[in-house]
Amino acid sequence: MKRIFNFSAGPAILPESVLKEAASEMLDYQNTGMSVMEMSHRSQVFKTIIEDAENDLRTLLNIPDNYKVLFLQGGATTQFSMIPMNLMKHKKADFIITGNWAKKAFKEASKYGEVKKIASSEDLNFSYIPDLKNLEISPDADYVHICENNTIFGTKFHELPDTKGKVLVSDASSCFLSEPMDITKYGLIFAGAQKNVGPAGTVIVIIREDLITKEHLSYTPVMLRYDVAAESKSMYNTPPTYGIYLCGKVFKWLLNLGGLEVIKQMNIDKANILYDYLDQSKLFFGSVEKASRSLMNVTFKSTSPELDDLFIKEAKANDFDNIKGYRTVGGMRASIYNAMPIEGVKALVAFMSQFEKDHLE
Amino acid sequence: MKRIFNFSAGPAILPESVLKEAASEMLDYQNTGMSVMEMSHRSQVFKTIIEDAENDLRTLLNIPDNYKVLFLQGGATTQFSMIPMNLMKHKKADFIITGNWAKKAFKEASKYGEVKKIASSEDLNFSYIPDLKNLEISPDADYVHICENNTIFGTKFHELPDTKGKVLVSDASSCFLSEPMDITKYGLIFAGAQKNVGPAGTVIVIIREDLITKEHLSYTPVMLRYDVAAESKSMYNTPPTYGIYLCGKVFKWLLNLGGLEVIKQMNIDKANILYDYLDQSKLFFGSVEKASRSLMNVTFKSTSPELDDLFIKEAKANDFDNIKGYRTVGGMRASIYNAMPIEGVKALVAFMSQFEKDHLE
Repeated sequence: MKRIFNFSAGPAILPESVLKEAASEMLDYQNTGMSVMEMSHRSQVFKTIIEDAENDLRTLLNIPDNYKVLFLQGGATTQFSMIPMNLMKHKKADFIITGNWAKKAFKEASKYGEVKKIASSEDLNFSYIPDLKNLEISPDADYVHICENNTIFGTKFHELPDTKGKVLVSDASSCFLSEPMDITKYGLIFAGAQKNVGPAGTVIVIIREDLITKEHLSYTPVMLRYDVAAESKSMYNTPPTYGIYLCGKVFKWLLNLGGLEVIKQMNIDKANILYDYLDQSKLFFGSVEKASRSLMNVTFKSTSPELDDLFIKEAKANDFDNIKGYRTVGGMRASIYNAMPIEGVKALVAFMSQFEKDHLE
Repeated sequence: MKRIFNFSAGPAILPESVLKEAASEMLDYQNTGMSVMEMSHRSQVFKTIIEDAENDLRTLLNIPDNYKVLFLQGGATTQFSMIPMNLMKHKKADFIITGNWAKKAFKEASKYGEVKKIASSEDLNFSYIPDLKNLEISPDADYVHICENNTIFGTKFHELPDTKGKVLVSDASSCFLSEPMDITKYGLIFAGAQKNVGPAGTVIVIIREDLITKEHLSYTPVMLRYDVAAESKSMYNTPPTYGIYLCGKVFKWLLNLGGLEVIKQMNIDKANILYDYLDQSKLFFGSVEKASRSLMNVTFKSTSPELDDLFIKEAKANDFDNIKGYRTVGGMRASIYNAMPIEGVKALVAFMSQFEKDHLE
């Protein structure tokens, strides 16, 4: 069996132990005589799986009791519609624009109400997180939306904006569970599983209870109502059962590692290896402002697009896969999510050093 | 490893060979060094997986070129909203009400336009398919909605309604790929994968191209637009990649068996064993009108609710799982989808015969 260092931005690397367990349980989960994917979502066995997953996530993130945890479908993009349809009581929302996903969320929300960009880093191709002090929050904004980690650009909010008491909504897809979060600072957090938690097709929503109401735009599809999802405990219809089962395994893996403080330190250690190398390299350099750097998605370039292309090609030939940067950014991107072992980062840096030696005249 | 006869109505039994393959490929798909769930959906490897899945489905169902195949999220219930949001140009739709799912679809569509029940079998607790001749189709109906196989009640449309030229929309979730379909008779077919095709979290939509337009209700979420899904080839955002991969494996399994004519005969043979037994039993009897019987979901009762309960309990103890009927129907239900081997049905009938001997005074 071959395993490579997979730097994909998402769907992305998962812990090998989780995949091994899933493979061993594929035909017979805990002596039930069936796969988790063959199981009624109303069965006691699956009920235990989803409840354990929720409880483990609550432990990991220290989620207060007045927040609901939902396992939904449709990815983060469906949340771009679901959030305004349910939360826009005054039909107003403010957005901080730090990349493609924030822009998409902004555009989608504009179907449902008045949206305002209160800060943006588009002027420098989203290579930094804008100044978060003294934002012009709309006095009647229903919420302020941020994309907390920008997968494409490699930036992260290292502090949260002062929303002046307004509800903070965070798309945390690509930094979810990479470090602790103070849940009480947020009204709603959502994360597509496929970055750091599990397979594509499951999206996790953590929402403060008072934001879940029966008031929503009248044409809101039933599957896009938080009240329906919360009342049915994410089972208004059949949920993505196998995805939830795998997310649950990743939660247990994190708990066994020691929790989010431990994984945060591991992530800092991994990212530092790569950033420290970039900061002293004569051939490679980081693509974004240092203060805005992501722990999960490290974007960098060499001295020319031609050399970038050669590096990507040689990297792939050496089993460092999915290292090409997003087309609007260029260069390279190494996504080093929780499941990427430090050995993968060390090996990549060794490979980059050798490439630098070979190509620096 | 234990495998039982799992008669779950969905999520449901999958072919053992498919699960074995998936297990063996869990950590390394075809020497890529990664699991399918760790793979970028934009990668060439995954592109091949989704294209093969579509092509195999086209072969199985003989899908004409003027129909698109979409792999979406949110289950059949999301289709209950997506269909009216996209197809209700005149804000009118007709429904044939044959069970809970048709009722739910009707209720959901009523948010978006005028809906009419043109036939119903609710008077006898959905134990039959209504007369389909001379239906009062609305002259300006955008479509006529049916639920082709009624999982809960165990009925199936054995002929299609005469829609007088109007677009036929079919929820085929629980009979999809159980037999050939004449796709040209439909405008849109949708099916949640978790009944007969794959894991929960993927829904397959087959839609005639002329029904895919830019005209849709202005507040339609971007993820609920057929034009967006079709233009992006089901990849406007990250699709449920692992689910699609498993559906693809089931399609190949069906092709290897010989296609849908072969599986249809196998399904008839299986269902006949059970129905023939029921028709001569003194203790058990079928719950629905004979002419409306489903090949997939066989509903039956014994002579008393107490005996039903005892049967369900003893069946479970003997590893015939998920045999309890839906609460509004009572009795028992054996779902005998494509992946249920004939041995499972024979074993169930043998068990029922013994139970009958033991309990018939």
